[in-house]
Amino acid sequence: MKQVLKMSNSEPKLITAPHVVKEELMAAGTWVKLEKTTYVDPAGNTRTWETVKRTTRQTTTEVDGVGIIALLKRTLHKDCVVMVKQFRPPLGCYTLEFPAGLIDEGETAEAAALRELKEETGYKGEIAGVTPVTCLDPGLSNCTTQIVLININGDEVENIHPTQQLGEGEFVEVVLLPLDEFQMKVDDLLKKEKILVDAKVYIFAMGMVQAFFKPRELPVLKQ
Amino acid sequence: MKQVLKMSNSEPKLITAPHVVKEELMAAGTWVKLEKTTYVDPAGNTRTWETVKRTTRQTTTEVDGVGIIALLKRTLHKDCVVMVKQFRPPLGCYTLEFPAGLIDEGETAEAAALRELKEETGYKGEIAGVTPVTCLDPGLSNCTTQIVLININGDEVENIHPTQQLGEGEFVEVVLLPLDEFQMKVDDLLKKEKILVDAKVYIFAMGMVQAFFKPRELPVLKQ
Repeated sequence: MKQVLKMSNSEPKLITAPHVVKEELMAAGTWVKLEKTTYVDPAGNTRTWETVKRTTRQTTTEVDGVGIIALLKRTLHKDCVVMVKQFRPPLGCYTLEFPAGLIDEGETAEAAALRELKEETGYKGEIAGVTPVTCLDPGLSNCTTQIVLININGDEVENIHPTQQLGEGEFVEVVLLPLDEFQMKVDDLLKKEKILVDAKVYIFAMGMVQAFFKPRELPVLKQ
Repeated sequence: MKQVLKMSNSEPKLITAPHVVKEELMAAGTWVKLEKTTYVDPAGNTRTWETVKRTTRQTTTEVDGVGIIALLKRTLHKDCVVMVKQFRPPLGCYTLEFPAGLIDEGETAEAAALRELKEETGYKGEIAGVTPVTCLDPGLSNCTTQIVLININGDEVENIHPTQQLGEGEFVEVVLLPLDEFQMKVDDLLKKEKILVDAKVYIFAMGMVQAFFKPRELPVLKQ
């Protein structure tokens, strides 16, 4: 099923670089707005799309927020991925996600990630890497995120008993999952309780499993 | 920055299971609607949230669509991930994504994935696995997807010269990226052209890299 409303019924014209012609507000909330996007498709036809945008993106950036893959490293412990569990009103249930948050005015992705990690989990980390800007649901919204990789030295005093700095109305439970059995532990959690996992979390797990997949374990291809 | 509008100023009550109280329509397009969600938070306070939903979800399912990790296996070729490149009106630019699409009435995730893969890329695949229902942007929308793993026998006649079955107004370019250098090839593409990569794609790449990461290559943790 495709979101395509064709406006002009003319035959395809010369191939053109597709582009947005105009964006009209359909509805605006405090945090989210809905726009009608008029664009020219690669065949030269003018069409419309319904686009969701956050109202909170800073003017200085193309990215709404950050997701944080934080690895907690402690002496005599397995390396763990620091996850958060919280009630999400849009889904009406608890979710299992990487820590994440929106970028504040003038903030870099790295600074936002260190701040959000500290607020949501109490851990103080060190930046290990940051991805390019990535999109989250490109058929629906213009929402973008940068994934920030953070290492946490769990032997440091402030990381031994980390203290969350949650805002009013925020409730976040920290969940540590061992890196070397990540997918299995996610699956275990899903079996135990009604919780929805974020696609990014599950796909990170699948990437790790894929890397260790032995081609010879594949079912023989049918001819 | 957090989307929290507190409605009741009473002191926190007994801990309660958070839940949605009501969902009110703020605005509806043909494909997307905006709702005001009233919910009770874990402290017992009544709050509101702004939630985006697709209007297209089938009544028989909790999932909007599928994402497809399709591995193309051919004699004397490297295994490749089948990717799609297309102009996305919400972002106003081209994106690099896994093939994906919405689930039609009465369709299973597996059937939707095989159909969408055939339509968008021309390849006929075989189901290798499917994830639980996952959420895409849980602070913004109720949108969900299941990731379907598909193997493609590239030696089969119909997969040697695959033919796309695109709908009116659809323009999709197929991009094959070798599995064993996936992140590097994604990065190369991003350097060459103005293209936005989907977070799921980049995180799948990161998962594979993480799996091969040697702990001894880590910078020594500071004390």
